[in-house]
Amino acid sequence: MKRTPLDTMNCSIARTLDIVGEWWTLLIVRDVFMGIRRFEQIREDLGISKKVLTDRLNTLVERGILKKVPVERGFEEYRLTKKGIALHDVLVAVRQWGDEWEAPNGAPIELVHECGHVTHARLVCDCCGEEVTAHSVKPQPGPGAKKKTSSRR
Amino acid sequence: MKRTPLDTMNCSIARTLDIVGEWWTLLIVRDVFMGIRRFEQIREDLGISKKVLTDRLNTLVERGILKKVPVERGFEEYRLTKKGIALHDVLVAVRQWGDEWEAPNGAPIELVHECGHVTHARLVCDCCGEEVTAHSVKPQPGPGAKKKTSSRR
Repeated sequence: MKRTPLDTMNCSIARTLDIVGEWWTLLIVRDVFMGIRRFEQIREDLGISKKVLTDRLNTLVERGILKKVPVERGFEEYRLTKKGIALHDVLVAVRQWGDEWEAPNGAPIELVHECGHVTHARLVCDCCGEEVTAHSVKPQPGPGAKKKTSSRR
Repeated sequence: MKRTPLDTMNCSIARTLDIVGEWWTLLIVRDVFMGIRRFEQIREDLGISKKVLTDRLNTLVERGILKKVPVERGFEEYRLTKKGIALHDVLVAVRQWGDEWEAPNGAPIELVHECGHVTHARLVCDCCGEEVTAHSVKPQPGPGAKKKTSSRR
């Protein structure tokens, strides 16, 4: 299927999906978060071809999400940049939705918070601390909204 | 590209991406959240072919994320199910990452919380209320972990 450039839409969701919306990309980021950082390790873990993995890793490096770092004996590792680490919230949200709706045997992985308990993260407002849900927020045009009326946001 | 079935991996991230990891799928869900609910409205907003949109909408209905509801004059609308509404956290996390890292002119859309302020949602632990970050959580096998050791999680 021909890919339509989502980054031309003036929408932060579309722009993000343009980078990480491909099936493998977010799984590669997940692997690096889990400490799987070398090309062959990632390839083995995901079971994908060298060509696809090379392509996805190059995109992630170009877009500033991963960086390649030389380690001992001529090996190289992929590490998360600050922009890559910022994807943690996305991974947590995606994982929790899957745990709730697509994991008939229960969560394959749990996250233990530094408070010592298995955590289910909640989204709260940075202003009042109350929950952010579909019913508690309303969208409005932001500073980056297009001047002319456009249905794409 | 031939699609590899991600839902065979015992990982809630992979299973979620198997459903919503396709470029258009999450944008369709976004549109329905924003009140764009009819086939022609969604098609016009996203600028995609009837064939692709029909395919994606059918998948979303089959997987229980959207439901088709008859409205006046023989029209039909797509509405979010409970499972679909639960994707709100994913959309908020994706939007915020895009606003921070891929929106050079600022956020195209802001979310106003019911407290009256533009919100930047934070992920907090449901147990202690402190922030959930890449550095404050550690993964451990959950109830749905495979018995035998597997590197796919």
